[in-house]
Amino acid sequence: MRNIKLTIEYDGTNYAGWQRQNNAVTIQQKVEEAIRDVTGKVSEVIGSSRTDSGVHAKGFVCNFLTESKIPAEKFKKALNSFLPEDIVILQSEEVEISFHARFNSIGKRYEYTIITGDQRPAIGRNYMYYFYRKLDIENMRSASKYILGTHDFSAFKNAGSSVKTSVRTIKEINIVEDGNMIRFIVMGDGFLYNMVRIIVGTLLEVGTGRFKPEYVVDILKSKDRSKAGKSVPANGLCLKEVFY
Amino acid sequence: MRNIKLTIEYDGTNYAGWQRQNNAVTIQQKVEEAIRDVTGKVSEVIGSSRTDSGVHAKGFVCNFLTESKIPAEKFKKALNSFLPEDIVILQSEEVEISFHARFNSIGKRYEYTIITGDQRPAIGRNYMYYFYRKLDIENMRSASKYILGTHDFSAFKNAGSSVKTSVRTIKEINIVEDGNMIRFIVMGDGFLYNMVRIIVGTLLEVGTGRFKPEYVVDILKSKDRSKAGKSVPANGLCLKEVFY
Repeated sequence: MRNIKLTIEYDGTNYAGWQRQNNAVTIQQKVEEAIRDVTGKVSEVIGSSRTDSGVHAKGFVCNFLTESKIPAEKFKKALNSFLPEDIVILQSEEVEISFHARFNSIGKRYEYTIITGDQRPAIGRNYMYYFYRKLDIENMRSASKYILGTHDFSAFKNAGSSVKTSVRTIKEINIVEDGNMIRFIVMGDGFLYNMVRIIVGTLLEVGTGRFKPEYVVDILKSKDRSKAGKSVPANGLCLKEVFY
Repeated sequence: MRNIKLTIEYDGTNYAGWQRQNNAVTIQQKVEEAIRDVTGKVSEVIGSSRTDSGVHAKGFVCNFLTESKIPAEKFKKALNSFLPEDIVILQSEEVEISFHARFNSIGKRYEYTIITGDQRPAIGRNYMYYFYRKLDIENMRSASKYILGTHDFSAFKNAGSSVKTSVRTIKEINIVEDGNMIRFIVMGDGFLYNMVRIIVGTLLEVGTGRFKPEYVVDILKSKDRSKAGKSVPANGLCLKEVFY
């Protein structure tokens, strides 16, 4: 038995997220179908995380066990020939049999893209969230410093997953302006359900002036989801890298 | 009667091009339907050009005559509320009654985007053409200099439109590298059918080494379509600006 690790890029627009479901098409299902087509056997694929419907990935990681004799690096080309055009294997490699894409992950980097301006975008609209209100970038940067570090992020999680602890460490938040786009780059050791999207939603409340930057401290302390900002739409979110 | 000029952004992926057709959904049709919804009257819209199925625009221009009393600048918001998410009016303004979006155009700027690399892209795949072979950028730049200026571009046009002359003036060709993307920026006084896509296809033949840069001179002189490169796919092409 061999353990194959895959790094995947996907456009999540037309999928109900990563995880297999009974009544909706998911990325996990498409990858498992491609593995079955290539190896002739069914393998369950273990993903580094669940991504929601509409969320994209440039460096999603998953692994699967197989008895196939196909050289690990050949899986990339073989799987890509069976996958639809919105899913691409970037890398395939053999890893130790004990490797587990979810349990062994020590961190992830996400990017959330906002586009501002007078009009909603037509081109690229599936990859960015249109936000028409003026944003104070410096205030958002000040607020983001309070989110850095180790905190109980209960106020920044939506119901939907059962986890033992809501304590996580955010190692980096960068807010980058690029023309009329604003990118939020968030790196941490792990993320609660919708946590990145709620962090961005909260920073937007700071950017518009509804929240003062320091209010983020109160939100964290409160552990009360209703205090934080809205969860911004899925289409602006992209999982860029998973660390092991 | 008033004449309204519209500047439009659209994602051409799901349309059979600009021009109205009987059996396919086009951008012209969507814009005319939105005008009818806003004004209550049918207006024919005159486009600056036909764009093919799958071609995008950031600055397409069209105009229409109307008896509506709606202030010109209000058309933008009104039409956008009726248009689908892949078509956006960027600007609406009143122009002289004699203004004609096609006949008065004195030039256009197009951009063609190629992505290189080991794997086809999933994210953004509708906006770029994946080309996996190595390209010699400097040779493509040398070749592009022969295309600059006024020539008979008969070798660079596909059958499909009747025009009086095949003489056009190309004022600018810039080839810009941006990570693993290559953008071809082409500006000219007018373009024959598929001309930008055939220019890019010909430059790619130079980039891979199949054509020498100087061979472009022979292609132009031959006026023979079969001598030039292939017409590259529509999805990489975007009409950026129309000049008046």
